[in-house]
Amino acid sequence: MLVIKVGGGRGISYEEVCSDLAELHAKKHPWLLVHGGSNETNALATALGHPPRFVTSASGYESRYTDRATLEIFEMAYCGKVNKGIVERLQSLGVPAIGLAGLDGRLLAGPRKSTLTIVEQGKKKVLRDDHTGKITSVNTELINVLYDAGYVLAVCPPAISDDHVAVNVDGDRAAARIAEALGACDLIILSNVPGLLTDPEDESSLISHIAPSNLDHYFKYAKGRMKKKLMAVKEALAGGVGRVVLGDARLAHPVQEALAGRGTVIGTETNHRG
Amino acid sequence: MLVIKVGGGRGISYEEVCSDLAELHAKKHPWLLVHGGSNETNALATALGHPPRFVTSASGYESRYTDRATLEIFEMAYCGKVNKGIVERLQSLGVPAIGLAGLDGRLLAGPRKSTLTIVEQGKKKVLRDDHTGKITSVNTELINVLYDAGYVLAVCPPAISDDHVAVNVDGDRAAARIAEALGACDLIILSNVPGLLTDPEDESSLISHIAPSNLDHYFKYAKGRMKKKLMAVKEALAGGVGRVVLGDARLAHPVQEALAGRGTVIGTETNHRG
Repeated sequence: MLVIKVGGGRGISYEEVCSDLAELHAKKHPWLLVHGGSNETNALATALGHPPRFVTSASGYESRYTDRATLEIFEMAYCGKVNKGIVERLQSLGVPAIGLAGLDGRLLAGPRKSTLTIVEQGKKKVLRDDHTGKITSVNTELINVLYDAGYVLAVCPPAISDDHVAVNVDGDRAAARIAEALGACDLIILSNVPGLLTDPEDESSLISHIAPSNLDHYFKYAKGRMKKKLMAVKEALAGGVGRVVLGDARLAHPVQEALAGRGTVIGTETNHRG
Repeated sequence: MLVIKVGGGRGISYEEVCSDLAELHAKKHPWLLVHGGSNETNALATALGHPPRFVTSASGYESRYTDRATLEIFEMAYCGKVNKGIVERLQSLGVPAIGLAGLDGRLLAGPRKSTLTIVEQGKKKVLRDDHTGKITSVNTELINVLYDAGYVLAVCPPAISDDHVAVNVDGDRAAARIAEALGACDLIILSNVPGLLTDPEDESSLISHIAPSNLDHYFKYAKGRMKKKLMAVKEALAGGVGRVVLGDARLAHPVQEALAGRGTVIGTETNHRG
């Protein structure tokens, strides 16, 4: 089983991702897609007069503050527009896709973290009513039932908390948890950059390979969203996933390119370029 | 198997519907929920500057004109906010719910009708690019796989067309098709009125029972949305469903009240009141 995460940032071509996935499906290569929708969520939130609020946690990670109104906007963008758009596209390519949110059938579950300690203008501050959580269980039984029946899944947040509230979870870390739970050999995380860069402003500064034992040394290159991606990489490797590739969703055949080693490869495999 | 359709109109209490369904689930009474979201869709469409357009077909039925932008708004409201809100609520009541749109796994499929002949100010007019369809197949295999695995479904439009486009379908008629395909004994259609009224302005003018053979005589009382509900009733009965109840979603225990015969009962069953 191959797990692919595709982000929701600007410039990402779901068309290419879906047609590449359809080719893999036709070759009987099993996969599960986890997708984002941040850009759509931001646009919808702004249009509805409830603009997104990104905060930096005390430990230095950036995240979306998700009050109840934001959660509903998030669901509209992720579970409505983006998920069903992907399912429709995959269906049109002959892939028997089903779209699920993490809360469906408690596919992705874990504790809610309703308070968030953030740093704003150098000061610590506590935000309440956050609908954010952490995944501690993946319902692999549900995934297997659907795969055994011939379906393919496109999965997105929110997850469901242990106390039954829909919670925003990080998509990359969700994909890592799923890959771990399914015993996937490969996890591919696609976004709108070529991979991990030593200089975020210079796309030619790609780091093409990282040995898992050295991963911690590379966190210094990760800014913004990339920090969480490396955290997801670390969790996936610790969970037994053989190889993680940070690939570029803007390419033609982005999944197959990443599978061939284009991007930043973290793992023990050697079938990577460069 | 019991199929329940709950509309998306004003005044409808999903809380009551879900807690009633949770009681039935606890009593091992199997059900499938089909829900609407018209009110949410209208509000979202208006907020996004693409207000809803309702048209009257040449044959006298009212429907939503669904261009591509409207379809995406529709998906955000139905598949995002409403569906995931219902799934979250059911989960919190201990029901292992999964939310699916008709296009997931081609649950609801059929031909698209991309042109719509409407009557506007007494003149016939053809609207193109409509994303509307008719259900001719229900994927009961997928439903059964999930029920056998212990899950319960909350289903909503859009469906998927034979040429792989997401299409708006009438929720009442979708519920009728599902009830027929599953061989359901009962179909309950809940909305924000007590049932079929001889005078739509007078809630005490409820018609409490209609013999199936007389149904055609009652179409004269149906205005607006109620016309499609009677069409759905007719299709369900023709498809072998034993009894259809048009019930009031605004009540406490709306499903159990309808099951007990409160509302307009159309069928051969006699366990109805009044």
